[in-house]
Amino acid sequence: MPYGFNNRILHVDLTGKNISVEEPGENFYRTYGGGPGIALYYMLKDMPPGVDPLGPENLLVFAPGLLTGTVAPCVPRYTVCARSPLTGAFGKSEAGGWWGPELKAAGYDAIVIKGQAEAPVYLWIDDGKVEIRDAGKIWGLETGTAAAAIKEELGDERVRIAQIGPAGENLVRYAAILNELGHFNGRNGLGAVMGSKKLKAIAVRATGRVEVCDPQRLKELSRWVSAEAKVHPLSKALHDMGTPGGVEGNNAAGALPTRNWTNGTFEGYEEISGTRLNQEILVKRGGCFSCPVRCKRVVRVSGEYDVDPRYGGPEYEALASLGSSCGISDLRLVAKANEVCNRYGLDVISAGLTIAFAMECFENGLLTLEDTGGLELRFGNKGIFLELLRLIAYREGFGEWLADGSVALAKRIGKGSERFLMHVKGQELPMHDPRVKTGFGMQYALAPQGADHQYAQHDPFFVPGNPLGQKAGRPLGILEGVPATDLSWRKVRTILYTSFLNFSYDSLGACVFGFIARSVTPYNILLEIIEAVTGWETSLWELMKTGERLNTMARLFNCREGFGRDDDRIPERLFTPLKSGPNKGSLAIPPDDFRKALDLYYAMAGWDEAGRPRQGKLLELGLDWLAGV
Amino acid sequence: MPYGFNNRILHVDLTGKNISVEEPGENFYRTYGGGPGIALYYMLKDMPPGVDPLGPENLLVFAPGLLTGTVAPCVPRYTVCARSPLTGAFGKSEAGGWWGPELKAAGYDAIVIKGQAEAPVYLWIDDGKVEIRDAGKIWGLETGTAAAAIKEELGDERVRIAQIGPAGENLVRYAAILNELGHFNGRNGLGAVMGSKKLKAIAVRATGRVEVCDPQRLKELSRWVSAEAKVHPLSKALHDMGTPGGVEGNNAAGALPTRNWTNGTFEGYEEISGTRLNQEILVKRGGCFSCPVRCKRVVRVSGEYDVDPRYGGPEYEALASLGSSCGISDLRLVAKANEVCNRYGLDVISAGLTIAFAMECFENGLLTLEDTGGLELRFGNKGIFLELLRLIAYREGFGEWLADGSVALAKRIGKGSERFLMHVKGQELPMHDPRVKTGFGMQYALAPQGADHQYAQHDPFFVPGNPLGQKAGRPLGILEGVPATDLSWRKVRTILYTSFLNFSYDSLGACVFGFIARSVTPYNILLEIIEAVTGWETSLWELMKTGERLNTMARLFNCREGFGRDDDRIPERLFTPLKSGPNKGSLAIPPDDFRKALDLYYAMAGWDEAGRPRQGKLLELGLDWLAGV
Repeated sequence: MPYGFNNRILHVDLTGKNISVEEPGENFYRTYGGGPGIALYYMLKDMPPGVDPLGPENLLVFAPGLLTGTVAPCVPRYTVCARSPLTGAFGKSEAGGWWGPELKAAGYDAIVIKGQAEAPVYLWIDDGKVEIRDAGKIWGLETGTAAAAIKEELGDERVRIAQIGPAGENLVRYAAILNELGHFNGRNGLGAVMGSKKLKAIAVRATGRVEVCDPQRLKELSRWVSAEAKVHPLSKALHDMGTPGGVEGNNAAGALPTRNWTNGTFEGYEEISGTRLNQEILVKRGGCFSCPVRCKRVVRVSGEYDVDPRYGGPEYEALASLGSSCGISDLRLVAKANEVCNRYGLDVISAGLTIAFAMECFENGLLTLEDTGGLELRFGNKGIFLELLRLIAYREGFGEWLADGSVALAKRIGKGSERFLMHVKGQELPMHDPRVKTGFGMQYALAPQGADHQYAQHDPFFVPGNPLGQKAGRPLGILEGVPATDLSWRKVRTILYTSFLNFSYDSLGACVFGFIARSVTPYNILLEIIEAVTGWETSLWELMKTGERLNTMARLFNCREGFGRDDDRIPERLFTPLKSGPNKGSLAIPPDDFRKALDLYYAMAGWDEAGRPRQGKLLELGLDWLAGV
Repeated sequence: MPYGFNNRILHVDLTGKNISVEEPGENFYRTYGGGPGIALYYMLKDMPPGVDPLGPENLLVFAPGLLTGTVAPCVPRYTVCARSPLTGAFGKSEAGGWWGPELKAAGYDAIVIKGQAEAPVYLWIDDGKVEIRDAGKIWGLETGTAAAAIKEELGDERVRIAQIGPAGENLVRYAAILNELGHFNGRNGLGAVMGSKKLKAIAVRATGRVEVCDPQRLKELSRWVSAEAKVHPLSKALHDMGTPGGVEGNNAAGALPTRNWTNGTFEGYEEISGTRLNQEILVKRGGCFSCPVRCKRVVRVSGEYDVDPRYGGPEYEALASLGSSCGISDLRLVAKANEVCNRYGLDVISAGLTIAFAMECFENGLLTLEDTGGLELRFGNKGIFLELLRLIAYREGFGEWLADGSVALAKRIGKGSERFLMHVKGQELPMHDPRVKTGFGMQYALAPQGADHQYAQHDPFFVPGNPLGQKAGRPLGILEGVPATDLSWRKVRTILYTSFLNFSYDSLGACVFGFIARSVTPYNILLEIIEAVTGWETSLWELMKTGERLNTMARLFNCREGFGRDDDRIPERLFTPLKSGPNKGSLAIPPDDFRKALDLYYAMAGWDEAGRPRQGKLLELGLDWLAGV
């Protein structure tokens, strides 16, 4: 009898409407974990190289973490993976909420979807029963309306739904998947993959639960973490302000991306700050299954911009990408734009940054009113903003130009517009400035899924003197702090180790906010949680090696798809100093040092000079089936 | 205030008679641990390449483990390191007993000795006071007599003494260092290095103690381990039978080296077995400081061979090297030969195997009575055996031929005699047959100190179905057993991981018998012990990385001294089947598979094709000062 997992992988072929269940055995879970580990296994084993991301051969994998669905704290997450239509590389996006735990409780550890339905469908998982149902009536609906329609059709208000909106249906290459309307697998355009398969939603209802090895001990550990979360400064700050707290801090550091990264401070930052959000539009704090932190925001706005609280509220990433990046300082408009992205199922970062890129092109005369269909694409132009998002989601008018992302747009525009692009591997940059924290630059460059800020994560914590970083680093063997702008071997090692750590967190379903930099939950408590759930005597070594295994598999997937050293490149703009703010004229990333740091990462990771994992490393990680041996 | 260590390294220059103390700081100890980590640091930093192992430039380092000297269980050990006069490579030998704990309690974490005294001296460490004293009167004395003389001179019976015997004084290249007459840094001829420095002994007396962070918790943990040791099958077996229990088991497996490895079974095995030893000559069980296992033997023999119980009793290695390897089945004679080695300060393995090699040469006509001074060097010739050992220790007659080890002897003999050599890097093989357990072959080939059976260690535990191996392997990520004769990537990974683990144990002063294969003491208990001693929140990752760091430093030292891929070679005899016993005609190691396995170890370890650590690996391990960066 397995504990913590079900030993059941659900395979769904939408072309043939075949459904089957595989039982891969305990060692499979211990080797690959849950989440992205399961996805990578099937993507490397069952998917030929070079498939069309929007074709039937692409695999779309939904996989909760190994601990997800238990009452363990802060482990609500699930991964969605596929070959990304935005990047062409390994696509991966994590979300919290309630859907992942529900799937585990229904008896499945992952859903591996292939093929393409002829007409729109949705998947209905009622405990052990799995059904492919007609979605003709809900196709085309906004997310909120669609969710309500599914619940009505199934006659159960408590059904958990992961779904796409019109953006996914219309194959917008940065369409999101969302669950419970407020939790997002936002990045990498995986909503478009779901759309290409004509799969509107996956509805799940469980009456069972995930069995754990030592429920009493798990309860004790959960209580310990919950108590700690109440007093720990980081979780308290996340509870009080949520991620929007980042607006003020980043602006003060000169690291708030503004007007498509032409600036690191925004004159309107106070308007879109977490403080203002709390004061003016916050209704309540939201959270995820079994999480004591509750960092999510729920906002309501009435008046010019009606914001429906069912859709939650903007995170820091949304405030900066839809706000400062586009020069918009109206909190209510940004909250509405965020809600509109959620209604349509758009990734807020890529949506905001693709618009910001277009705005910079427009301001510089590379786009004309003729191109935009008469839209004055100036930074800060509030009047056109919501319309732009609608045009994107429905691929109407100028929206068609924007719907494939900023890199495709630059190709369409030409005229040297690519100098304004802020992307890695085709994915638009998250809202953390690598000039101020070089580790983010390394994360962006190295993350297999393209620019991502949760690939190695711990950058702000490891600076000298930060007690959180010290606690996080020492059990990893990182004894001294690493300055924020450092690019020496010390920074590289920190990125290497935390890239392993974060992949292992993802495989567990662990949210970085409960485990970031081992704060709130120390490593040894996490290990005890894993033991209480699974019955395994494990170690931080085993955990790190699982993370390294997944990181290596993702790299190998990308190598297979033709990605290499040249694709690990950050935008040129980051090699030039900021033009204003506290870091004015300084802090450009030295390009040679940066390239050397990436090469050193390869070397430390056991990859060759071209960035390809060496055979010895693959074998050391037990990946003999990928080593050609 | 440091816990667990003193932050004091004692430097002694015997040429200039200078004594100084260095305080390297907490991060030094956390990076390198104690024991071999400290030695490697100074040997790589302060010692130029290519020094004469018996010259004044060789550094001789005595270093107890990081936990040694505390009441933590099973951590009594200290390392002695230098460039080895037997191999020319990194020399390293561990011993238990009481001397290491005494040195730590006296306030020092290591002694780094350089130079060469003009006339014999000994070092006297009386808590903080350090004195270089004249050893004119004790030079030349057997170990027991010398120890008594030093105690009398110092007027303190409780002085702990590490010392050499006549063999070390006479620069026998496999001379041992011993403490309390029954604990040995036997291998690598480090006693000759001590002799070359004219340093007869290091006497230590401490009235202080090593401070620990949480004495109460440490006491609880120690009690837990002691209770476990009473019931755990492995520690119980070690207590009851000691290592001599290995004679019967290995003979049954066809793995008892017999007549210079020409056979794996010995017709006289019962006579020299642990059972017989217990029945006939055992006086009592001995042990080390703060160890609940008490695996050591104390024997007494009267009659033809008087064996003085002060010198302890033979281990398995002695019974097989002085017994079956030389065809000798008289338990009392083997016990006496063991005692004689202890009196003279000779390594039993190299002494026995050098004689065994000479015997095979004699039997095959490559040595004559003229060469041997009339000694009939036939296997099983009891009458010459003790005399041979005396000749070696004093380099008299044919002893001069034998005193530089088997490889030097083969050069002297010529005539193709090297085909009978059983060594790696010039050090004679320990008593475990790699044909029956291929992991021992890998250990022998890869250990930086030459053939060594405690370099990776866990070979017998990881076979399929062994619950000890399962418990040991899973937290390391080794989920499945590896067959004894396997040479696939699975075996290589097991050797890789346990080579890190064992180096980390050495750095802690931990005895494999308390921690082998995580039995008796699980990893998490060990981590708690480290935390209770030092106050550090650590992890198995940090521990493994420390082990990997030391393993890499040792390899780098050897590269610097000209060792490379060609030196990682086991004797040809192991590539041919055994001629009798249960494995007759089978189980030769496939030479191509073996070479591939070694190459794969390099690859997994982050070394290049020539077996040299890559720069990326050095930097990942924080060894920037060795990476030329």
